[in-house]
Amino acid sequence: MSATARRSPALGQALPPWDVERWFNSEPLALSALRGRVVVVAAFQMLCPGCVAHGLPQAQRIADAFSPRELVVVGLHTVFEHHLAMQPHALEAFLHEYRVTFPVAVDRHDGQPVPCTMRSYRLAGTPSLLCADREGRLAYHAFGRPADLEVGAVLGQLVATPLSTSRVAAPLPGDAGCAPTGCPIPVTG
Amino acid sequence: MSATARRSPALGQALPPWDVERWFNSEPLALSALRGRVVVVAAFQMLCPGCVAHGLPQAQRIADAFSPRELVVVGLHTVFEHHLAMQPHALEAFLHEYRVTFPVAVDRHDGQPVPCTMRSYRLAGTPSLLCADREGRLAYHAFGRPADLEVGAVLGQLVATPLSTSRVAAPLPGDAGCAPTGCPIPVTG
Amino acid sequence: MSATARRSPALGQALPPWDVERWFNSEPLALSALRGRVVVVAAFQMLCPGCVAHGLPQAQRIADAFSPRELVVVGLHTVFEHHLAMQPHALEAFLHEYRVTFPVAVDRHDGQPVPCTMRSYRLAGTPSLLCADREGRLAYHAFGRPADLEVGAVLGQLVATPLSTSRVAAPLPGDAGCAPTGCPIPVTG
Amino acid sequence: MSATARRSPALGQALPPWDVERWFNSEPLALSALRGRVVVVAAFQMLCPGCVAHGLPQAQRIADAFSPRELVVVGLHTVFEHHLAMQPHALEAFLHEYRVTFPVAVDRHDGQPVPCTMRSYRLAGTPSLLCADREGRLAYHAFGRPADLEVGAVLGQLVATPLSTSRVAAPLPGDAGCAPTGCPIPVTG
Repeated sequence: MSATARRSPALGQALPPWDVERWFNSEPLALSALRGRVVVVAAFQMLCPGCVAHGLPQAQRIADAFSPRELVVVGLHTVFEHHLAMQPHALEAFLHEYRVTFPVAVDRHDGQPVPCTMRSYRLAGTPSLLCADREGRLAYHAFGRPADLEVGAVLGQLVATPLSTSRVAAPLPGDAGCAPTGCPIPVTG
Repeated sequence: MSATARRSPALGQALPPWDVERWFNSEPLALSALRGRVVVVAAFQMLCPGCVAHGLPQAQRIADAFSPRELVVVGLHTVFEHHLAMQPHALEAFLHEYRVTFPVAVDRHDGQPVPCTMRSYRLAGTPSLLCADREGRLAYHAFGRPADLEVGAVLGQLVATPLSTSRVAAPLPGDAGCAPTGCPIPVTG
Repeated sequence: MSATARRSPALGQALPPWDVERWFNSEPLALSALRGRVVVVAAFQMLCPGCVAHGLPQAQRIADAFSPRELVVVGLHTVFEHHLAMQPHALEAFLHEYRVTFPVAVDRHDGQPVPCTMRSYRLAGTPSLLCADREGRLAYHAFGRPADLEVGAVLGQLVATPLSTSRVAAPLPGDAGCAPTGCPIPVTG
Repeated sequence: MSATARRSPALGQALPPWDVERWFNSEPLALSALRGRVVVVAAFQMLCPGCVAHGLPQAQRIADAFSPRELVVVGLHTVFEHHLAMQPHALEAFLHEYRVTFPVAVDRHDGQPVPCTMRSYRLAGTPSLLCADREGRLAYHAFGRPADLEVGAVLGQLVATPLSTSRVAAPLPGDAGCAPTGCPIPVTG
């Protein structure tokens, strides 16, 4: 097995940290700082038809359905083709036009066509959806168009599973605010 | 509060038993015999456009997505209008044409326009979706067209919540078979 | 070639008269009385999923898009299975619930499973869509789910083709009223 | 009335020539050279959600449904916002990913935010659909999401209306080939 394959997360293993050039809609977010919450990574390219028609609307529905205290959605712009057409300034216009409001990270390029996090996560392409439990372990990985009912069931189970007792979710900068579904009591460490 | 209102199940209360004239796609199922499993009741009328376009396809997606050992979907034909056009023999043709494969119960009529279980559950109309946890307590009640992601999240949480230790799920007649998603080890009491 | 096949209308041949037991949403309409208008026949069964999901909504869109002075849509209830479940009283409830407002004819049964007009038109099943030009000649015949763009193109061409000079469209009882798209000047014979 | 407004085409008036920087999927096409055919102009921006979800798929359905001898679809990339993100090199990647096969013209910029043809046609925004008859006169102009049935009806009527006798459609370079729906006999001038 190659070094690359060994780095790849299997279900139940820790999701590796993401390697990001720039953030939109958010301050930089470290995966480790989200421990205690369910994390959904929606990998996409702005000129990928399946991402525009399915992946991003589904990610937005997830972000709207769960409290950010329980679950955080991160878009990951993993450009592996048409690099000149999908620069960050174009992505910014795209996110504005498509009303994407959740945090979006630009996957880092190091000179290879496929960017760093996409290689580390061994994604098959875009759109890809990865869900990690409150401990940061990969619990779901789909390429293409998984059904909302299936994704909802996975996330409902992850949200219902509490952190092991020795861990406490750390507060995030935006935690003072309210979720669309209500105003939760702030977590104190 | 009226006697009727008092009988109505609130979230967290036990779902009352259903009162049924006839079953399709199944032997008669008692709600009490399903204790230990999540129970989804999809109330519908065969000539209700919202049921045909949304409620029944969603119920079928739920039945296909979960193992019947974990979750049971029951269609409840709650005819409160056009009674002559929606007799059981017409329902049988309808279920055949629409390829409905989960158990369907015909709500009992006692001379009033609204049938017995529909009154007992105080449904607002059709389609209505009710979800009960493994203890038989109402956990979700929606009238209309709830989104798949929301329903999936609710059911994922209910499935992830085990029975309290003093209760054990009883086996059902069909439990020897396999679910669409795999062949579970039979439960032994 | 059998007598039945010889009776079948080919493209360009006169559409045979329909043989009808009963009408909903209209006085009885004779095909001959519609000469001068484009005629669309939407054959359906009320328990046919493809008719409910596609054929009838498309027929309603056609009826809403064209002036009834130019084009008349007729639904034809051609029951060839589950006869007991699709009696006229059930159809009446169905048309009410599905808000079908165009004229609907019940195809006559003479003891054979397939009703008379359906046999005469040699339909492959339901839904079927037939379009006749202003002279009453069959111009289009599709079984299944033809695309709106194709159907619109066919009907636009038929509406744009005037009657030959020797014929004049006869007024219908409802012609005094206005179409959804405007109030046309009444035709005078 | 301003000079701009006077230049604007009303229904029945000649569609002004387009002013184009560059073509994709085609040699340069002059509107005057298309006289004799129905012309459909689908104005869009590659980062306009309504264009991606509705306008461009509808334009492709039109291009697929009609013979290019009868009807020509031209996409017009009318960028009036996010100019840096929608340069021609990005459009080229977009057209490739979205499998757009009909000719696409890039509307010329002269230093103003709204490009030249878009101003000349007085478009309200994107997506916009304009249809000209075989004589080059504007017959239909819609902003937003016109229904396929309506657009099909308009185009069917335009295709069914022959050129006046003094005019003959000129052959185009690609006319030797076959349409998706068959191989028409070449027009000879």
